[in-house]
Amino acid sequence: MTDDQAGPPEAAPRRRPGGRTARVREKTLRATLELVARHGVDGFRYEQVAELAGVHKTSVYRNWPDRDRLVSEALLQVGEREAPVEDTGDLRRDLAQLLVAHSASLLTPTGVALQHALQPGAVNEAVKGVLDAYYTERVTAVQERVEKASGEDRLPGVDAAFLLQLISGPVHFHRFRTGSPLPRAEAERIVDVVLAGLRATAEADDQP
Amino acid sequence: MTDDQAGPPEAAPRRRPGGRTARVREKTLRATLELVARHGVDGFRYEQVAELAGVHKTSVYRNWPDRDRLVSEALLQVGEREAPVEDTGDLRRDLAQLLVAHSASLLTPTGVALQHALQPGAVNEAVKGVLDAYYTERVTAVQERVEKASGEDRLPGVDAAFLLQLISGPVHFHRFRTGSPLPRAEAERIVDVVLAGLRATAEADDQP
Repeated sequence: MTDDQAGPPEAAPRRRPGGRTARVREKTLRATLELVARHGVDGFRYEQVAELAGVHKTSVYRNWPDRDRLVSEALLQVGEREAPVEDTGDLRRDLAQLLVAHSASLLTPTGVALQHALQPGAVNEAVKGVLDAYYTERVTAVQERVEKASGEDRLPGVDAAFLLQLISGPVHFHRFRTGSPLPRAEAERIVDVVLAGLRATAEADDQP
Repeated sequence: MTDDQAGPPEAAPRRRPGGRTARVREKTLRATLELVARHGVDGFRYEQVAELAGVHKTSVYRNWPDRDRLVSEALLQVGEREAPVEDTGDLRRDLAQLLVAHSASLLTPTGVALQHALQPGAVNEAVKGVLDAYYTERVTAVQERVEKASGEDRLPGVDAAFLLQLISGPVHFHRFRTGSPLPRAEAERIVDVVLAGLRATAEADDQP
């Protein structure tokens, strides 16, 4: 499903903000997300995407020959927009902000519909593939952020997938329990415990 | 549907295993859980409970005049049976075992149906009330277990609700991501980081 890893060269045409290609991409991904939220990962057709986005059907087929890839890019676009991994130089603050933003995005109408659409991860291979691709990218972003941390913020050898599981699991739990957004103080409390725990256990592993 | 636990006869009305009252209670709560899984918290009638349980309708009304209480007791019965908070003297091991058992219970047909039925916690007051009652009891069990911990296991002043959020959030995340049971090694890794983090941040708070 993933044929990314294409590597650096060539100022990538597709990502460039502004420009007609970028606008088509943006509209296509938004329409895809909307249709996934309404009908599920398997429940929409490319024709519907083209119609809702107001773009040519051929441009959807050409740019996203892989359907799962279309869906995971659509998810990533909203994820990166609504809950970006920031770098203010303060890791604790950036991760807490990620949780607060992520929590808010889970509660939007589209967020609720998407969680519903992506629920049957256990049985549906398409959903599983899409979620895997989505999380791989998100984990990479967190990994890069963590590796840039310096001074007291350093987290040597941390597994970003595990870190993300530890900090965002409690966010989902909070939403499930309360249906309300995560207060910043609670996000900070979660991040503090997890970062301290990762440091303490990494040190313990260092002991001979 | 095992109604084993036949145990010794007579005595203490509701809680005592064995005894007619206890069996009626057991059957009633099982039937309730089954109906909640099928039809949701709001979607079943007391008549159905009585019929499915094979008990008198009046006994259901008499013992559970409060409908939410009936549902939360039914949830607790299955929670305590499938994922009990044990005390082997090793806190880390007991919490990891709780996570492994909880993870398995999320994947049973009833577990899946219940999660679905309890999903709209955000909007449905009945669901929220039921979940609150359920978690309050579970948190109390964890709090009692933590307070009994001694030696290196001690966790002074810990907030068991927060502890439970930190350790069971990642379990739900794992299920959502993989649809498979949590391996014990991963449960232990989660518990290790969270316990270490709680201790480290508690110590930090102690500093003047």
